[in-house]
Amino acid sequence: MSEQGTGKLGTLYGLGVGPGDPELITVKAFRILKESPVIAYPRKKMGAKSYALTITELYVNTEEKVMLGLTFPMTRDREALELQWNRTVSMVWEHLEQGKDVAFVTEGDPMIYSTYIHLMRLMKERHPEVQMISIPGISSVNASASRLGIPLADGDEQIAIVPATDDYETMRRAVESHDCIVFIKVAKVIDLMLHVLGDLGLVDKASVLTKVTSAEEMIWRDIRELQGRELEYLTLMVVRK
Amino acid sequence: MSEQGTGKLGTLYGLGVGPGDPELITVKAFRILKESPVIAYPRKKMGAKSYALTITELYVNTEEKVMLGLTFPMTRDREALELQWNRTVSMVWEHLEQGKDVAFVTEGDPMIYSTYIHLMRLMKERHPEVQMISIPGISSVNASASRLGIPLADGDEQIAIVPATDDYETMRRAVESHDCIVFIKVAKVIDLMLHVLGDLGLVDKASVLTKVTSAEEMIWRDIRELQGRELEYLTLMVVRK
Repeated sequence: MSEQGTGKLGTLYGLGVGPGDPELITVKAFRILKESPVIAYPRKKMGAKSYALTITELYVNTEEKVMLGLTFPMTRDREALELQWNRTVSMVWEHLEQGKDVAFVTEGDPMIYSTYIHLMRLMKERHPEVQMISIPGISSVNASASRLGIPLADGDEQIAIVPATDDYETMRRAVESHDCIVFIKVAKVIDLMLHVLGDLGLVDKASVLTKVTSAEEMIWRDIRELQGRELEYLTLMVVRK
Repeated sequence: MSEQGTGKLGTLYGLGVGPGDPELITVKAFRILKESPVIAYPRKKMGAKSYALTITELYVNTEEKVMLGLTFPMTRDREALELQWNRTVSMVWEHLEQGKDVAFVTEGDPMIYSTYIHLMRLMKERHPEVQMISIPGISSVNASASRLGIPLADGDEQIAIVPATDDYETMRRAVESHDCIVFIKVAKVIDLMLHVLGDLGLVDKASVLTKVTSAEEMIWRDIRELQGRELEYLTLMVVRK
């Protein structure tokens, strides 16, 4: 990588654009989108569009921007992973080096389970001189509580955000030890979750939401009907005791 | 309470205006602020202004609105509490009954440790026919992660949000059993927290933030210097292992 530039480097922004409803972007994220000459977004497989890109297109004229579609490796092959990641970082760096700000748009909040976290880490490793600024976004966790009208926590109550796994004991302990638990990535283990909640007598305290606040939002307040059902990846469960 | 109105009732909005930086309000909250004829806000003691009100005043001309300052009882006297709460609910209901929408502004997110939660509960009890819509806001938890550039969670990691108390064992268990813990209300027990983290060898993994993203924001990445120090109420601690 040639370090040809002598001028000021661009800033890398990690921009949360919210959970799905385009109006749930912040005024700050909107301003930075407008001001950034380069907009980077996670490219999905097979031409599918990410929410992040769809929302971005509503707020800026993409023909006035450099639109940088980044591919994020889904493989577990370490070598392929590293190769792809290095390419991605280089693509972003190319613009920063020229003094151009890059806004990387991400669904929800950039600091919670987002691809920006990886980009940030690798950029720091390879180009520690780059200024990186994260702009918080409404996460699907916060949005779900509002859509349900169920407080996540009040007073001295504790909240946990837990990626659901197929480990009965871990899931059970998570439910037992908090007042409110938000299980993300719940789609693949919905039957196990029903089992855990059934054993604890808490099935009625759980709701499930898919693609919250988007046009395709679905909400189940009686989660019994989800038994054996295929669910979207972007599905979470709120358990409020 | 006379139920004189026969027309349509107004909607009660719980509007998150974000953690302090006025730009961290969502486009949706901004629109609803503009459209609502009545804006309710938590009145602080002794004339102190809340962030929620300060931010609101930047976005709307308050002279064109009915500004409804609500007093929230801080007492533990049940009778005084109920009396004050009933008065507050009645003040809001008076406008809803006339078909006017009321936007109750709240710092951070309305579904996490907010006064809106109480208002919502009591309104539902006394006037279940009122439509209530919560608009999520950026909470200080999400904002802190962005300001620190520290991810709250990635991959299969768990997050907990825990109100700090003076119970050593509970605090220690919270740290031990999660990858990332955000302790809110940490000001009064900062020495105990230092003790817990010291025993676990995690003092270097903790940061403390006060009034995050506001003009008075303070951030400590070396929390040893907080020993014995007086801190603001709006202080939280992020522990990321």
